[in-house]
Amino acid sequence: MAKQVKKPVAEPNGAGLVYTEWFPGATGLSFKVKEILEDVQSDFQRIQLFETETHGKLLVMDDCVMLTERDETAYHEMIVHVPLLTHPHPKRVLVIGGGDGGTLREIVRHPEVELARQVEIDGEVVRICKQHLPKIAAAFDHPKVDLVIGDGVRYVRDAEDASYDVVIVDSTDPFGPALGLFGEEFYTNVHRILDKDGVMVCQAESTLYGMEMLKSITLTLREIFPLLRVYTSQIAVYPSGTWAFAFASKGPDPLQALDPTRAAEIAEGCSYWNEEIHRGSFALPTYARRELDL
Amino acid sequence: MAKQVKKPVAEPNGAGLVYTEWFPGATGLSFKVKEILEDVQSDFQRIQLFETETHGKLLVMDDCVMLTERDETAYHEMIVHVPLLTHPHPKRVLVIGGGDGGTLREIVRHPEVELARQVEIDGEVVRICKQHLPKIAAAFDHPKVDLVIGDGVRYVRDAEDASYDVVIVDSTDPFGPALGLFGEEFYTNVHRILDKDGVMVCQAESTLYGMEMLKSITLTLREIFPLLRVYTSQIAVYPSGTWAFAFASKGPDPLQALDPTRAAEIAEGCSYWNEEIHRGSFALPTYARRELDL
Repeated sequence: MAKQVKKPVAEPNGAGLVYTEWFPGATGLSFKVKEILEDVQSDFQRIQLFETETHGKLLVMDDCVMLTERDETAYHEMIVHVPLLTHPHPKRVLVIGGGDGGTLREIVRHPEVELARQVEIDGEVVRICKQHLPKIAAAFDHPKVDLVIGDGVRYVRDAEDASYDVVIVDSTDPFGPALGLFGEEFYTNVHRILDKDGVMVCQAESTLYGMEMLKSITLTLREIFPLLRVYTSQIAVYPSGTWAFAFASKGPDPLQALDPTRAAEIAEGCSYWNEEIHRGSFALPTYARRELDL
Repeated sequence: MAKQVKKPVAEPNGAGLVYTEWFPGATGLSFKVKEILEDVQSDFQRIQLFETETHGKLLVMDDCVMLTERDETAYHEMIVHVPLLTHPHPKRVLVIGGGDGGTLREIVRHPEVELARQVEIDGEVVRICKQHLPKIAAAFDHPKVDLVIGDGVRYVRDAEDASYDVVIVDSTDPFGPALGLFGEEFYTNVHRILDKDGVMVCQAESTLYGMEMLKSITLTLREIFPLLRVYTSQIAVYPSGTWAFAFASKGPDPLQALDPTRAAEIAEGCSYWNEEIHRGSFALPTYARRELDL
């Protein structure tokens, strides 16, 4: 069971209660905090939830910002609609991680989806998000959703060949419980369990501050999948403000034309995603293209 | 004359010497500081220059981050090459502000340019940047450059009709010395001094945190220019990490095809700009398109 730790957050000169994430080799990002709602150590990680002055609620795991209510759609819409609208018939979708539920919420908006299965290692994350973030953890009771509390690496290893159309790896950063979600064995199994038009997306760190990790992810995926692309989203609360996603595919290309009816229906309910941003998000700065050989 | 003020920067718990910018209604962004190189009050503003641990030198004016050596190209390449490559023959270019010289450095790379005139109100900025940031303040002695230390608002008011092809407003934020650079009278004069294919670009705040200002800029420009577009660049050291530029034009459209020879020549020397990012940078998140009616 989770135990309460309730360590105080930092309190610098004159700014009141403040939560700061220092990204290694980069900048520190701070939020003014009104209230500490949760601060627990689960079996897997430290989970903190703050009520901030400017960004609504802020979810932190192992000292990394996961989301704020103010701009979470820039992450969830981009990790879901890019692969799902690229796939011609995304019936069976598997999410690894994503315990806050925002990714599921976007998946079930696609009428083609028949099964949205989520494998989250830490049930405590789901509990906290259902309690405090109901607009994000909005789809756990949806009839198409199957929530499995378990190890995503093992789940993917044991899953049947060609049993999913889309796999979304909505993980924390590549250490602690998420480490196994960034390796060759895991990606090889993802490839195996994807059906013939299968696509996968994983969150893949900052193009500016996390290039070493992003490069490692893309090099590994390229050996396994015939098509690899990288796209980004503007996520103000992540280090550098621009976050990368790796897109790997057995065939469908996100830069080919989307089905206009499906795209329009999804866009209608989005605050971030639209067809222009879908295409534009694959344009990378020259320094990133050179590093990634894209 | 500038006088030294040398106020200390903040020093929070355990993190050593740190510079933090708190953006109103948003997050705080911090840099670990190795050394304070300059901290002066000029006739117009406070100018600080820090040697940071992770971003090279950091230039701050009136408590706003202007640039770091680590990622300045994302700003300077995007404020220059988007308008200059859109214009069919950018011979006469006027820069308002831009005292660090990075914008000039990119302008003189275009062989079509015959005159790059810069009007900077604060000679102290130029002095500090020439001394400490020689790779950025690299073009002040270029034969095509004419540096005027003076008031940009007055300069534009007094300039002749149709005397420039491109105007770039590379200003600080809309208060203090830069306030007059965001108003209707100024933009009307910019329109007047532009020749028939003339285009202008101005830095236009964060799409996430500065929407009120961005909206005001675009509404004003739309009443004056027949074509208005907004594009963004990934600037990790500015609030939210994504920064908007307003593009206004008497005709040329940045989304039309670029001259491939000119574009390739410029791209060769860029670390950020390329043709894909040029087009992709005009794709805005849905929330911004709705607010801006774009």
